[in-house]
Amino acid sequence: MTTVCVPSDDVRAALSGLAVETIIWDWNSEPPPGLDRVVFAVPPYMAGPPPAESVARLPALQVVQLLSAGYEAWPPMLRPGVVLCNGRGIHGGSTAELAVGGLIAVLRELPKFAELQRQGSWQPDRTDGLDGKRVLVLGVGDIGSRVVTAVAAFGAHVTQVGRTARAGVLSMDAVPSLLADQDVVVLALPYSAATHHLVDAAFLAALPDGAVVVNVARGAVVDTDALTAELSARRLRAFLDVTDPEPLPAGHPLWRVPNLLLTPHIGGGTARWLDRAHALLREQVGRFVAGEPLRNVVG
Amino acid sequence: MTTVCVPSDDVRAALSGLAVETIIWDWNSEPPPGLDRVVFAVPPYMAGPPPAESVARLPALQVVQLLSAGYEAWPPMLRPGVVLCNGRGIHGGSTAELAVGGLIAVLRELPKFAELQRQGSWQPDRTDGLDGKRVLVLGVGDIGSRVVTAVAAFGAHVTQVGRTARAGVLSMDAVPSLLADQDVVVLALPYSAATHHLVDAAFLAALPDGAVVVNVARGAVVDTDALTAELSARRLRAFLDVTDPEPLPAGHPLWRVPNLLLTPHIGGGTARWLDRAHALLREQVGRFVAGEPLRNVVG
Ligand SMILES: NC(=O)c1ccc[n+]([C@@H]2O[C@H](COP(=O)([O-])OP(=O)(O)OC[C@H]3O[C@@H](n4cnc5c(N)ncnc54)[C@H](OP(=O)(O)O)[C@@H]3O)[C@@H](O)[C@H]2O)c1
Ligand SMILES: NC(=O)c1ccc[n+]([C@@H]2O[C@H](COP(=O)([O-])OP(=O)(O)OC[C@H]3O[C@@H](n4cnc5c(N)ncnc54)[C@H](OP(=O)(O)O)[C@@H]3O)[C@@H](O)[C@H]2O)c1
Repeated sequence: MTTVCVPSDDVRAALSGLAVETIIWDWNSEPPPGLDRVVFAVPPYMAGPPPAESVARLPALQVVQLLSAGYEAWPPMLRPGVVLCNGRGIHGGSTAELAVGGLIAVLRELPKFAELQRQGSWQPDRTDGLDGKRVLVLGVGDIGSRVVTAVAAFGAHVTQVGRTARAGVLSMDAVPSLLADQDVVVLALPYSAATHHLVDAAFLAALPDGAVVVNVARGAVVDTDALTAELSARRLRAFLDVTDPEPLPAGHPLWRVPNLLLTPHIGGGTARWLDRAHALLREQVGRFVAGEPLRNVVG
Repeated sequence: MTTVCVPSDDVRAALSGLAVETIIWDWNSEPPPGLDRVVFAVPPYMAGPPPAESVARLPALQVVQLLSAGYEAWPPMLRPGVVLCNGRGIHGGSTAELAVGGLIAVLRELPKFAELQRQGSWQPDRTDGLDGKRVLVLGVGDIGSRVVTAVAAFGAHVTQVGRTARAGVLSMDAVPSLLADQDVVVLALPYSAATHHLVDAAFLAALPDGAVVVNVARGAVVDTDALTAELSARRLRAFLDVTDPEPLPAGHPLWRVPNLLLTPHIGGGTARWLDRAHALLREQVGRFVAGEPLRNVVG
């Protein structure tokens, strides 16, 4: 019998009917009996990196299946040989939707019009828009490729960048020379040593006046101080769903800069995300039990 | 020499180099000399229906080229034989962008998060989203087909409706039986006798609780009183870029209903729309002078 550690009752229910034993544990509270039998573990969503003691309580661990697409905190915590799988596909549609919705809200000034609506005041005004805009999408996986499809439908000219160059996709080496010609930059790549502060003062300085930075990846892909300076000067605009630090503490300068729309890391968290998460977990545990290759292996 | 009547200097400039004489007139002010020579006329954008006396001042008129996609006020004003062309393609990208941006703003509660941002308060919360949603798009021309592409990229299941049924597109007869199964209805069809109050009390009553109505077409495609009742009861949600009456007068009940995001008919009016308009006009006048068939003939 395969023993699976799950964070909650609803995840246990998602696995019902599969030939597994489940133990509920959140990797933090008092450890329940039987953890030494756990081979497949699902940590709680967005609970942050696991304490080393928690990992040590799972000596038989073979697979960690995350419910998030981001996984940067995990590889250093796991013993060699433990397979790490992420939640790719659970959050892509809704995170791309938020990236595009936030970008449109900035360009079309939706917060301003919502305020005029509250005042009962009809004041049409020309706004900015995506038509004819040059949009650079950094990371064209589950999230980025959906963003590309949508903004192209609204008339934008898109340049796509991934880890490795291929048809229609450039590699990161090409980026510095492209920045001066971009109206919008969308960040949809994982956080890692390679992407830490990718968007720094020099990156931002290379963008033309009025360009919009969209970050739905991870806060520290951007140098927050450098972006804060550009926004404060009203030279650039931004939509951020992720920040560094996160949560953004009360009184942080980013709360008060102009030209910014900010949401509190809600990209993947729509009402239906658990349905998608449960479907993925059921599939992955089923594959594991059947000895089939797992999906979404990232480490 | 072909004489073209244009509404402003910038439109005249857009035609420079073409073998035409241009006369500037806004169809309302004191008529300038030479209107009796005008064969091709471009009325001002969104100026409303023309007075009958204005049309009578153009006895040689052969073509009216609008800068808007909507043209419902014009056919009754024109003599038989005068060709009417609309601005299809000028506004499609930016109007689809606004439809999708407004829909995402409603589902992902962007006005609420903008307010929390003003308060400096980080409060993540699960929201609604398009993933897995059933979206009915009524009118799949320039605007509607772009909406279809974008919402499908975010994981929605789309049903498309046009005037005539064809592969992938249903006709209006199918709509009543579909409504009970829709989460979102997007209106992107022209206003006409056939679409007047298409969305009436019965149409709305057939939608499930919480469904979202998006109208970027014309206000009177919707029965405003019926929609106001459903929004006031918080049974449905809506994003409206167009209203009936329009402009929405101060104190109108629609300003105060819950569950509504409203913009003041800004769909087509982005900063670059004039570039697109000028490109279309240049092409159309060029075709007319060369005796080639015109694009966008609607009457
Ligand atoms: N805001 C939220 O709520 C939320 C929700 C979900 C995810 N996220 C974040 O978004 C990130 C992307 O998610 P996803 O599901 O789209 O991931 P994905 O499907 O794995 O795609 C990642 C993309 O990034 C590219 N990439 C990876 N490392 C790169 C590097 N060093 N330089 C340039 N490009 C690189 C990949 O390039 P190749 O195509 O060449 O492999 C791929 O195109 C996640 O890692 C997570 O941090 C945020
Ligand atoms: N909010 C704004 O600022 C803004 C900007 C631009 C346009 N608009 C409005 O949006 C409307 C659509 O613009 P568009 O450029 O997408 O027009 P379009 O390209 O001509 O497409 C119109 C679509 O509506 C369908 N249709 C026409 N009459 C219909 C009827 N009686 N029943 C069902 N479907 C019908 C057509 O069906 P077929 O495909 O079968 O022909 C077509 O799919 C315009 O007429 C205008 O009123 C608003």
